[in-house]
Amino acid sequence: MSVIKVASHSRTAAVAGAIAGVMREADRAEVQAIGAAAVNQAVKAMVIAKSYLAEEGVDISFSPSFVEVMIHEQARTAIKFLIEPRNSKE
Amino acid sequence: MSVIKVASHSRTAAVAGAIAGVMREADRAEVQAIGAAAVNQAVKAMVIAKSYLAEEGVDISFSPSFVEVMIHEQARTAIKFLIEPRNSKE
Repeated sequence: MSVIKVASHSRTAAVAGAIAGVMREADRAEVQAIGAAAVNQAVKAMVIAKSYLAEEGVDISFSPSFVEVMIHEQARTAIKFLIEPRNSKE
Repeated sequence: MSVIKVASHSRTAAVAGAIAGVMREADRAEVQAIGAAAVNQAVKAMVIAKSYLAEEGVDISFSPSFVEVMIHEQARTAIKFLIEPRNSKE
């Protein structure tokens, strides 16, 4: 599964569209953000994606975790959001 | 249910403890944050709360939404995170 990477300058509507698209195809999506501004954009995008998918009868929730990623050969801690249907058993 | 309010200066471990405590008592919790720094603290606290509760065999997920709140008589948009057991049917 490809990871949707969100930056502080990412447009929330565009990210929301990407999340909804991946959810429709794969029934789960991963979003990754580094830093407060990017995490905030990711959360706002998830709220918007939630409203898009709610129109199709799909309710989503997310499960966040810390992940170490390498950026320009430096270790950074990112937040990874695993997005799933809300009452998923998987 | 009382709402756990997170500010940019909130300590993530303290917020995580509050979330875990409410989850143990009520099986669901609400966290509210306004602004990128506070949302980031809230997300980090949720990751930590998730690890606390995982030790007790409880897996949690989050469902974010926008809410309008009044701060000093001004309307602000907050992010509300509803926290539930991950495979909850409620």
